[in-house]
Amino acid sequence: MIIVDAFGGDFAPEEPIKGAVLAADEYKREITLVGDEDKILNVFEKYSLSKERISIVHAPDVITCHDESALSVRRKKKSSLVVAANLVKENENSVLVSAGSTGAVLSAGVLVTGRMKGVIRPSLGALIPGKKPFLLMDCGANADCKVEYLVQFAIMASVYMQNILKVENPKVALANIGSEPEKGSTLYKEAYKKLENEKNINFIGNVEAVNIMNGEHDIVVCDGFTGNMLLKSIEGMASLFKGVLKETLYKSTKTKIGGALIKNDLNAAFKKFDTKQYGGAPLLGVNGGIFKAHGNSKDILIKNTIKQAIDFTDNNCLEKIKKNLS
Amino acid sequence: MIIVDAFGGDFAPEEPIKGAVLAADEYKREITLVGDEDKILNVFEKYSLSKERISIVHAPDVITCHDESALSVRRKKKSSLVVAANLVKENENSVLVSAGSTGAVLSAGVLVTGRMKGVIRPSLGALIPGKKPFLLMDCGANADCKVEYLVQFAIMASVYMQNILKVENPKVALANIGSEPEKGSTLYKEAYKKLENEKNINFIGNVEAVNIMNGEHDIVVCDGFTGNMLLKSIEGMASLFKGVLKETLYKSTKTKIGGALIKNDLNAAFKKFDTKQYGGAPLLGVNGGIFKAHGNSKDILIKNTIKQAIDFTDNNCLEKIKKNLS
Repeated sequence: MIIVDAFGGDFAPEEPIKGAVLAADEYKREITLVGDEDKILNVFEKYSLSKERISIVHAPDVITCHDESALSVRRKKKSSLVVAANLVKENENSVLVSAGSTGAVLSAGVLVTGRMKGVIRPSLGALIPGKKPFLLMDCGANADCKVEYLVQFAIMASVYMQNILKVENPKVALANIGSEPEKGSTLYKEAYKKLENEKNINFIGNVEAVNIMNGEHDIVVCDGFTGNMLLKSIEGMASLFKGVLKETLYKSTKTKIGGALIKNDLNAAFKKFDTKQYGGAPLLGVNGGIFKAHGNSKDILIKNTIKQAIDFTDNNCLEKIKKNLS
Repeated sequence: MIIVDAFGGDFAPEEPIKGAVLAADEYKREITLVGDEDKILNVFEKYSLSKERISIVHAPDVITCHDESALSVRRKKKSSLVVAANLVKENENSVLVSAGSTGAVLSAGVLVTGRMKGVIRPSLGALIPGKKPFLLMDCGANADCKVEYLVQFAIMASVYMQNILKVENPKVALANIGSEPEKGSTLYKEAYKKLENEKNINFIGNVEAVNIMNGEHDIVVCDGFTGNMLLKSIEGMASLFKGVLKETLYKSTKTKIGGALIKNDLNAAFKKFDTKQYGGAPLLGVNGGIFKAHGNSKDILIKNTIKQAIDFTDNNCLEKIKKNLS
């Protein structure tokens, strides 16, 4: 079952619905939209959308970005996100796409859909546009981590990169403050040893933050505190530089002329650092494939995230994760 | 006593010596150069430098960047850095500037000069050019931290910012993965509470990595693992963007013309993100003022770092740190 939370994200319900319709048509798959039925039908009417391969499950309530994540997931039983997460739980090998807030999607996955048997901690990944795209995992779900969690993150992330991004034998690096095995905190020194001896992954050693965007890795493993710091630091610096660049180009007539000549090339060059371009961030280790689309996703990004979810279910990623963890 | 390691850094001994001569003249202070006496005298002769206010302490050996830091500090007793660190230890309220490798300067400070009474862990700061310069502490000396260390880092950093950068009542932020007090790992949640109740600092709450370059803080406190990740991530992103920018500007005749028109303004704008511009990074919590100048420092940066060291000793920072910690 392929499920889309129609009421998650800044442009809900229009864009999630349009994205689902695009995906149903392009991939010829049945898609279930979850949310207030009347409102969903209104969107279909307003934009004259095709209902082919679309079904609707009614959920009258909505979790907004102002709600406290875990609390709202526990209380708003009839919200689109919670109803959707329950559908994932009840229907084997199901997948869900939501552009709702990260905290809410995470809470719905862990508290409603539930932790996969054998997984100690579900983990949130972020696809980062480095030299080649890599999955940063965990990027914020688990602020306190133990060595065993990091090893499981590496295994789950490897299944994801193999099956969704089609990377053969994905290279796993450990984020660390030095390249040598003996570098880092106690957690990271021990994680290095365990990762080195884990047969279900292709461990290539430590990567320092200075090289994280230029490395050969397909996966960077770290605790959720560090991952969030890295992700937000990359985003913050990208936005800072964009701002400085813009300011400089508008500084004088001379720079405006210069800017006009290079603007297109610069935009193209810097676009590849946009951490939002891939659409979906996977929550791995729950009883289903849950994908968090970026909050400001338009239809195409929703459609792309649904494609990730389809690949997840078609490639039996849940089974593969279970198998590789055991 | 103001001591300069004449044989630390990529351009030793010329640049450290020239920097010391500049400082002795500009600040009218006695400065002690440590290193191979003949080689030092050769530099004075070659560049016709004035020996006024300069004295030399002979140390025939050198710790190179290829040496393993702690080991070389223990073994090379006659190296310029170890002899200099011993001078700091033996002469009350002394300060040392070295452009040697971070690891070696750190080891010399902790193992030779020694930990200050009452300090649990000496800590390395990095001055980062944000909206205004802020001290990131710890930036790599302590990969494993406890709550008490973070509180001491905040106190030591506050004395530094007050006395060296002349910031009144410096604002201390805690690096974290959310702005709310209850965010973060166990260490950070507890650190928040302790920092909030610490009377000798001006704590303003959490700062997320995305806002670290745009914040109102004068100090960002974190464990050395996180600090190193942040510092290296900032450096890595800055270098990445510089590279992309350069590549784009040389892409075609059109972009070359555009680039020529904006180059100077762009260079000026991006220069302010250079983490190396301030010269000296303080190692706080040892029995003296130890300042690590950047490895590729030329004379002016060495001189600027010596100025920091002079301010440290003239303002009795050691005593102030001791007092505020107790």
